[in-house]
Amino acid sequence: MLSSIVKKGLLSNNLLARIPRYASTSGQQTVLVVLYEGGEAGKRNKNILGCVENALGLPKWIKENNLENRLKLVVTSDKQGENSVVEKTLPEASVVISQPFWPCYLDKTRIDKAKNLKLAITAGVGSDHVNLEAACKRGITVAEISGSNVVSVAEHVVMQMLALVRNFIPAYKQVINGEWDIAQIADKAYDLENKHIGTVAAGRIGLRVLQRLKPFNVHLHYYDKFRLDKSIEKDLNVKYHPNVESLVKECDIVTINCPLHPETEHMFNKKMISLMKKGSYLVNTARGKIIDRDALVDAIKSNHLEGYAGDVWYPQPASKDHPWRSMPRHAMTPHYSGTTLDAQARYAAGVKEILENWLNGRPQRDEYLIVDKGRVVSNAYTEGDATKGHSENK
Amino acid sequence: MLSSIVKKGLLSNNLLARIPRYASTSGQQTVLVVLYEGGEAGKRNKNILGCVENALGLPKWIKENNLENRLKLVVTSDKQGENSVVEKTLPEASVVISQPFWPCYLDKTRIDKAKNLKLAITAGVGSDHVNLEAACKRGITVAEISGSNVVSVAEHVVMQMLALVRNFIPAYKQVINGEWDIAQIADKAYDLENKHIGTVAAGRIGLRVLQRLKPFNVHLHYYDKFRLDKSIEKDLNVKYHPNVESLVKECDIVTINCPLHPETEHMFNKKMISLMKKGSYLVNTARGKIIDRDALVDAIKSNHLEGYAGDVWYPQPASKDHPWRSMPRHAMTPHYSGTTLDAQARYAAGVKEILENWLNGRPQRDEYLIVDKGRVVSNAYTEGDATKGHSENK
Repeated sequence: MLSSIVKKGLLSNNLLARIPRYASTSGQQTVLVVLYEGGEAGKRNKNILGCVENALGLPKWIKENNLENRLKLVVTSDKQGENSVVEKTLPEASVVISQPFWPCYLDKTRIDKAKNLKLAITAGVGSDHVNLEAACKRGITVAEISGSNVVSVAEHVVMQMLALVRNFIPAYKQVINGEWDIAQIADKAYDLENKHIGTVAAGRIGLRVLQRLKPFNVHLHYYDKFRLDKSIEKDLNVKYHPNVESLVKECDIVTINCPLHPETEHMFNKKMISLMKKGSYLVNTARGKIIDRDALVDAIKSNHLEGYAGDVWYPQPASKDHPWRSMPRHAMTPHYSGTTLDAQARYAAGVKEILENWLNGRPQRDEYLIVDKGRVVSNAYTEGDATKGHSENK
Repeated sequence: MLSSIVKKGLLSNNLLARIPRYASTSGQQTVLVVLYEGGEAGKRNKNILGCVENALGLPKWIKENNLENRLKLVVTSDKQGENSVVEKTLPEASVVISQPFWPCYLDKTRIDKAKNLKLAITAGVGSDHVNLEAACKRGITVAEISGSNVVSVAEHVVMQMLALVRNFIPAYKQVINGEWDIAQIADKAYDLENKHIGTVAAGRIGLRVLQRLKPFNVHLHYYDKFRLDKSIEKDLNVKYHPNVESLVKECDIVTINCPLHPETEHMFNKKMISLMKKGSYLVNTARGKIIDRDALVDAIKSNHLEGYAGDVWYPQPASKDHPWRSMPRHAMTPHYSGTTLDAQARYAAGVKEILENWLNGRPQRDEYLIVDKGRVVSNAYTEGDATKGHSENK
């Protein structure tokens, strides 16, 4: 089934146009590709395109299109510390490709160091690991594969919402531990039906979450800077809130689906969490830094929040002792919601499309561009810097 | 939130009409109520109506309606062995109330012993723990609270389907174990989108599963003895299969939503499982005995099936060494999908409605009746016996 599924996923979102041959032009450009280690799985499964071993399929693509003289690939997972491959390669890199799942934080120090950098590509969605303000000033183009994994993430949100409200993880643990205590599980098991569910932002992902929840007969809510079309609001029977505070006060379950940028950094701090209903649930597949780490732990430990799920952390990878790993009543995952095999096929194709346009001096798709010609061009972001606090280049 | 949620759940499905007072009539009837132990949770949380401690709210209801002289309650979880409360109470019981989550198996031996038995009520949905053939011959009415938890189970199916296809459990385990290995998770993580999903039976639960899956942009399939209305087929864009074999050959994910009766017992045996696509998934929240236990274990261990989830076992509770607990790539739960707090409020109300009608000699709702006046009256069941193999009364 594996190959057919990946094929279907690719066909249904095929971004990869026919690649023409290029005339040899001005010298070789270094492309720094920062990905996670695939290990045994990466070696065995060529559909895990997002790992070092398979390098988004770029080596094969370069060879097939005779681009060896134009692009020099440096593929690595080594991003930590001043002797890392990332730090050593930055001065010569024209392009940096990185992923939300294993981000290469491009803060001001690194951007200053990367004198030749012209293009930063996110193989996925979410470019908060780049200091957009610094990118604007340097005229670096920042692009991501918008849409490549919005469905993947929306599915993850619905799954984790159901897992929390239905008390799935404690029930699964009973199976593994040889137990059978129905009351213990039922004690905290509800249906999703009839609950009030709200999304912070109803963009590409948030809207898909709302669409998937509609037949569950729930009460839908949203906040966004931009109001949805009246026809969509009516079809989904979704209530608009003018601010996040108003939304969290009414909802049993809140899901965060906005990008991270200076306006949303730590939006869910102690104060915002205190406005949430007692016994409510929070699901965050957006970015870890949108939540104040310790305020969340306190809210779970004090039983103000009934449960937390999501797959985003700060920084990433999360340290072994990150307190979210061990807090009670969570159903968290490492950051992979947007890197299913279906999504990988789509964003690997998107990266090639962006590189191809760049090599040919052709414009990029509007929806891919975050920073272009010195300014933030995506509605979803504000100019600024959300990269503070990582320690990769220390 | 807890009380408001339960209240909402109850209000939205309120089966509990105003209870009139009854004139005292012919003597006291013994009602044997077999439920799971609630333990600490049951004592603390009065919304866990389905446990021994809270006894479906029947003690309070009897008191409020002055029914002490008419109904003698025997509430127990003790159903195992010849000295159990169940075995000792059966000879005098006029009514037996039991649950799928902690079933009191009413096989022929027990029905023979229960000389006074007139009414067997399932506090939930699924009356396969009763030998329906023997009930027909004895003129015992078998009733269940149809509809009380169909939404709960349908939600569970969608949750477990997402958990399997997206590889949720291994990802969660990485969080708990302090790991961060994205490739290892992505290796087996897919989107639901574009997959072929089929339900065996499209009754009250199966249809709700299809409805909830529709906005996930999947290809839907179903088999049922009864064809859905053309308008429903068209709206869901669901393909009908004339038999189960045809369905499993086309689907990446199969979900079982039919009752257990002699025709469906071990329907998923070695042969049927061998017809399923290699690498496909199976989700069963219907009944454990619909699947051949060891054939499933073999199919998982040989990698013919990629994963299994569900919450039904045979017999129940599942023994500590039941092989499904320890087989690879499962996302199972103990049987609780239909006993969320929302569902419990609904089926507890339904049990009272059935008792009230019975005491007053009024007819039961048609949709609640499985066996009435000596014959199987529900389309979902066939006459026969699916209780063999438990060992409670040994």
